[in-house]
Amino acid sequence: MAQIDTFAGVIPPVLTPFAEDLTPDHGRFVDHCKWLLAQGATGLAVFGTTGEANSLSVDERVALLDAALEAGIAPDLMMPGTGCAALTDTVRLTGRAVAAGCGGVLMLPPFYYKGISDDGVFRSIAEVIDRVGDSRLRVYLYHIPPVAQVGFSVDVVGRLIEAFPGIVVGLKDSSGDWSNTEALLKAFPGFATFSGSEVFLLDNLRGGGAGTITATGNVNLAAIRALYDAWQSETAEALQAEITEVRKVIQAFPAIPALKAILGSYHDDLAWRTVRPPLLDLEAEQVSKLLNSLQSHDFDLAA
Amino acid sequence: MAQIDTFAGVIPPVLTPFAEDLTPDHGRFVDHCKWLLAQGATGLAVFGTTGEANSLSVDERVALLDAALEAGIAPDLMMPGTGCAALTDTVRLTGRAVAAGCGGVLMLPPFYYKGISDDGVFRSIAEVIDRVGDSRLRVYLYHIPPVAQVGFSVDVVGRLIEAFPGIVVGLKDSSGDWSNTEALLKAFPGFATFSGSEVFLLDNLRGGGAGTITATGNVNLAAIRALYDAWQSETAEALQAEITEVRKVIQAFPAIPALKAILGSYHDDLAWRTVRPPLLDLEAEQVSKLLNSLQSHDFDLAA
Repeated sequence: MAQIDTFAGVIPPVLTPFAEDLTPDHGRFVDHCKWLLAQGATGLAVFGTTGEANSLSVDERVALLDAALEAGIAPDLMMPGTGCAALTDTVRLTGRAVAAGCGGVLMLPPFYYKGISDDGVFRSIAEVIDRVGDSRLRVYLYHIPPVAQVGFSVDVVGRLIEAFPGIVVGLKDSSGDWSNTEALLKAFPGFATFSGSEVFLLDNLRGGGAGTITATGNVNLAAIRALYDAWQSETAEALQAEITEVRKVIQAFPAIPALKAILGSYHDDLAWRTVRPPLLDLEAEQVSKLLNSLQSHDFDLAA
Repeated sequence: MAQIDTFAGVIPPVLTPFAEDLTPDHGRFVDHCKWLLAQGATGLAVFGTTGEANSLSVDERVALLDAALEAGIAPDLMMPGTGCAALTDTVRLTGRAVAAGCGGVLMLPPFYYKGISDDGVFRSIAEVIDRVGDSRLRVYLYHIPPVAQVGFSVDVVGRLIEAFPGIVVGLKDSSGDWSNTEALLKAFPGFATFSGSEVFLLDNLRGGGAGTITATGNVNLAAIRALYDAWQSETAEALQAEITEVRKVIQAFPAIPALKAILGSYHDDLAWRTVRPPLLDLEAEQVSKLLNSLQSHDFDLAA
């Protein structure tokens, strides 16, 4: 089998900025993508959970993707989230991403129905791959049971790899359960397994994993990248401890509004704070608490 | 306040038939709508959970709605499901339903993010109502926590009724928890509360409820309607017992494929069996078991 280029490193699930009327803000989105790459991002997982993608229509996602590509961001750095509740939406978004030359897609299983069997999950992903029908497609499975509720068991991952070699090439494990990541690493050497949190980055790399796709990458990318670059060095444990501590401070707050508030503060741009329903903006008091907490730890975010 | 006409009675969440290539089958859909009305349906809740609506794109749903209206089905009998994960999708579908003169819409809260607070649910629905901005809008809240996970607490229902009088006029309670329905009936007399299962129809009507919106209505409508018409008569308990028994037989199987299999058998039309991923068609053996079980109970479905 030919060598397949897959993503590796530190990939932020890019936050989606909104104007006051809640329309996606293309300018700030493109600027944020470029800034993340300048900070050391090895790819951009636009339209993930952190990007409030499922609160956007397919058209809104396509327009944002087009804006990023038109602004000169290399398509092979893009890993758009394309998994929707509706089969036809997932096919349309995935087809569009492949046609645009995206390096891969991050694919949720359909998430409306619950208690879906492995056969149902397999059939869902297989149907999308068959319909897109393009050998350039690279699928990264998006396993996030705390949110989607429907996930990818180790068994169904194996079935998908076997059925679609060179197409199903990786997975983001946002289960929050290290033993699940460990099981994937052991079962599928060479498969690009990303931890869904930088807390497990060093463990993941030591186990043969590909890196991390982590929400906190939106605000702490340089530090997480530093660990990725130095994971085999003597400083690795200390670097891991530092980014884990930052993560813990942030995750005491609702993640998406908190990350937007940090970015708003860093860029001195309050517009960044806006989130779409059903999410709620952080209240001023919470923002102060969050920023004070980061400051008191002397964290130099977004270096 | 002027009297607001609201739905009442027995409303099936209409099954969506698919062609072999999984495209929605407009002809069979329209025929099924008409047949349900002929069986005594007092409204049609197209695009609900049973209709696999969240496995359809917004365009696919709009096309099906247009097909039904063009075929002469009265818009005031239509209660399309319009609640999507994405704010803009919900606004578009809801606006379209109102423009078409639909009697109401059945609205899920955004269901991707979990652990959403009452404030987040309130903001979501309020934002849609404000954006649609049409006094003809009638919202029936769709409370189905076993599937959507995100639901409407009694408290948030009260806040929505108060904020949007004459607009938020009813609710379908598919919690499966009678005590929740009871609490709604007590808290909001005059509010059109539908039980999500005919098992609670008699209790719901005795408590002042509006009727039932029930999946089984796709195959057992006439019998459920008979109870609705006779709920104050001496035969009510016996009619309730009979429809409850049918429900129990059917719900021993995966609901949507089972209902499609029954309809396929009744119409002698196997095409009805097709479901979209992530659902799976019933296996032949399960279909036989289901049909035998109904037959052995001597149920005369779809009278």
